[in-house]
Amino acid sequence: MRVEPRTLPGFMELLPEDQIKFNGMVDKIRKSYERFGFLPIDTPIIESSDVLLAKAGGETEKQIYRFNKGENDLSLRFDLTVPLAKYVCEYYNDITFPFKRYQIGKVYRGERPQKGRYREFYQCDIDIIGDENLSIINDAEMPSVIYTTIKELGFEDFTIRINNRKLLNGLFEELDLEKISVEIMRVIDKIDKIGRDNVIKCLQDLKIDDGKIEKIMSFIEIKGNTDEKIKALEELNFSNDLFTTGLDELKSVVKYVRAFGVPDTHFKVDLTIARGLDYYTGTVYETFLNDYRELGSICSGGRYENLAEFYTDKKMPGVGVSIGLTRLFYKLNELDILKEKGQAISKVLVVSMTDNLDKALEVGDRLRSAGINTDVYLEDKKIKAKFKYADKLKIPYVAIIGEEEEKNGTVSLKNMETGVQEEIRVEDLAMALNSK
Amino acid sequence: MRVEPRTLPGFMELLPEDQIKFNGMVDKIRKSYERFGFLPIDTPIIESSDVLLAKAGGETEKQIYRFNKGENDLSLRFDLTVPLAKYVCEYYNDITFPFKRYQIGKVYRGERPQKGRYREFYQCDIDIIGDENLSIINDAEMPSVIYTTIKELGFEDFTIRINNRKLLNGLFEELDLEKISVEIMRVIDKIDKIGRDNVIKCLQDLKIDDGKIEKIMSFIEIKGNTDEKIKALEELNFSNDLFTTGLDELKSVVKYVRAFGVPDTHFKVDLTIARGLDYYTGTVYETFLNDYRELGSICSGGRYENLAEFYTDKKMPGVGVSIGLTRLFYKLNELDILKEKGQAISKVLVVSMTDNLDKALEVGDRLRSAGINTDVYLEDKKIKAKFKYADKLKIPYVAIIGEEEEKNGTVSLKNMETGVQEEIRVEDLAMALNSK
Repeated sequence: MRVEPRTLPGFMELLPEDQIKFNGMVDKIRKSYERFGFLPIDTPIIESSDVLLAKAGGETEKQIYRFNKGENDLSLRFDLTVPLAKYVCEYYNDITFPFKRYQIGKVYRGERPQKGRYREFYQCDIDIIGDENLSIINDAEMPSVIYTTIKELGFEDFTIRINNRKLLNGLFEELDLEKISVEIMRVIDKIDKIGRDNVIKCLQDLKIDDGKIEKIMSFIEIKGNTDEKIKALEELNFSNDLFTTGLDELKSVVKYVRAFGVPDTHFKVDLTIARGLDYYTGTVYETFLNDYRELGSICSGGRYENLAEFYTDKKMPGVGVSIGLTRLFYKLNELDILKEKGQAISKVLVVSMTDNLDKALEVGDRLRSAGINTDVYLEDKKIKAKFKYADKLKIPYVAIIGEEEEKNGTVSLKNMETGVQEEIRVEDLAMALNSK
Repeated sequence: MRVEPRTLPGFMELLPEDQIKFNGMVDKIRKSYERFGFLPIDTPIIESSDVLLAKAGGETEKQIYRFNKGENDLSLRFDLTVPLAKYVCEYYNDITFPFKRYQIGKVYRGERPQKGRYREFYQCDIDIIGDENLSIINDAEMPSVIYTTIKELGFEDFTIRINNRKLLNGLFEELDLEKISVEIMRVIDKIDKIGRDNVIKCLQDLKIDDGKIEKIMSFIEIKGNTDEKIKALEELNFSNDLFTTGLDELKSVVKYVRAFGVPDTHFKVDLTIARGLDYYTGTVYETFLNDYRELGSICSGGRYENLAEFYTDKKMPGVGVSIGLTRLFYKLNELDILKEKGQAISKVLVVSMTDNLDKALEVGDRLRSAGINTDVYLEDKKIKAKFKYADKLKIPYVAIIGEEEEKNGTVSLKNMETGVQEEIRVEDLAMALNSK
């Protein structure tokens, strides 16, 4: 009895051509994270449910892939932050703080599958974890890593938006609204999507009086460039402690983001950024491609006071950002932005015109030893099939060995894009290909 | 209530220092696979149980992580071959044959945890899949990839052992033992572990008469180098079809393995290699590090006639090998062989001796722009703590910026291994580090 081979809905599976592009993005992200000295870790995908769900609840918990194996209650990780918290506690004595780690891996959430939403997807996370303390300057390193990474991915026009939650929470304290601060932030966070009028309406729905709504709106709508916004925030003269701490932090972050070399063209203070999670306590970030605002934030994160409070009484503050790569890849590909970024794995396909493959194998071995990715066509097929193979795989060069070439100790190297063909001595072939 | 943070038994989780070594091995394997033109794919870890288990049964099925999510009966993949079969059928029309693919990823088997055995482990697979046919020369490409890969991993003294199952099966046909061929092969396969006498005993237990046992033993104990063994096989003058096909195949493989550039020092015909799985139908491979035979085969595989018979009536023969990296890493690390292979992520740590970090951040940005992995120490700690950080992370250089250096536009670059310190102009620093 035959089974129908199929992949589950909500699980991304790519053809090699797209996989090459995807892997190229992973490589660039990893390279960029390592450029800043972040260390790799690789935690298991399966964890004990009590460990993984120590902190979870509500929506998250419903989405978990949870099951029993023997006597064990197990779950698949739904993010890389909880495993990091576990890791830092488990190996506390072996870790050097501040602990700068990156992890790139798959996480699992049983969401209702819909276009562009995945149940298995890659997250690319960096975090810096302090032992008791962590300087605010780390909050400025994040935009620097984001800047380098997004540029490395080939984008030029993007903006890193920075805010500090203490400003918002300080404002809410001033307005006596701290009890519904999370609800207000969720509303504010949506201003980009739902617009100003709907934000006001939602705030009215929260039973906030019009005077306070006006203050909230005039706060989040402070205009100007980064320095003008900071000046305007100073001129509010709020005496609220939380607010003044937040303002000091934001000023430090802006100062150091510049010192890290991020140009003012690529970051700005955005007082509407709040982030959905109640997890963040200070600086928060979102990153937008200006030509593709519809993608939403492609790299987000923030500062948190206490990474691992569910496991330990040690205080471990941290700051981090994450790229949701599977969704980003899907959207970029859908917009056809990745069109030109595909590259073949092999630079050259060696093809024999005769039955004798010895020379082709020798040339293949020679090219590989010179560091050139080389495929040798081994099947006994018509020459047309051999070229079609190179064509389909987008291999840019074909090295042809016929009787003539074998006699001359040469190959005919065909440029598959231009069709131009040149005879090259076997011993010069690697150099010729390396210079192309 | 606090939860105890812990990792499940049988799941490898490494400290960053070891993770760097592990990732280095993955990078080398991938690079080597791509050198031969293998294309990447990345299939989901979760599959529908009916798809994944179409072929499974017995021991394998018991080890599966299988569970329900909503109405779906799901399983975690236990190897990368079944997902490949699924993939090839699902995207048959989009795939270019022969399909050379690699996949490096985690697989799951709920084995009893014991030292060096993992429930979650990496497999690094290559396979070449043909549509209807696949030339025997592909069977010779495998040893060439193994040779390149194991050398890339830093080993010199290893042997790729090659056999052809048709020889064994032909012999069993001749001896009228084909009904217990699988059982006999399992016994023969263990000769390295249990020794000659125990093999004979096991064969006697299978109720094989002494004359036949003698023939089996004299066959698997044929002595000599590769050419001598082939000559001895020819001189057996078996008329059995299977045997003669197997011998022709073996001769072709040996001929082409040499043409692929694998030296005779690194491969040999070993007539005792059978492989446990009944899956293989022709050429089979095992690879041993000669200084560490106790590791067992570190790269194994073979030829199979029909990859996807459980999904399709299309005939797709293939050949492939796999490296079980998690177990290999564990054993190499245990033997302390990887000791010297560790490298820091960062080449240099920039440290400010004053409160002002501006210069340090500028130097950091400059070095990163020049492609050098650079960490800047951001915390307000004593100088001793800063050097301890570099030391723990094995960062080879520290660039120190004090008042004097800041005034001079220099840094003092300390070699952490030798302790030697030299003053270098900031604009020359990247070049100086790149040449080290």
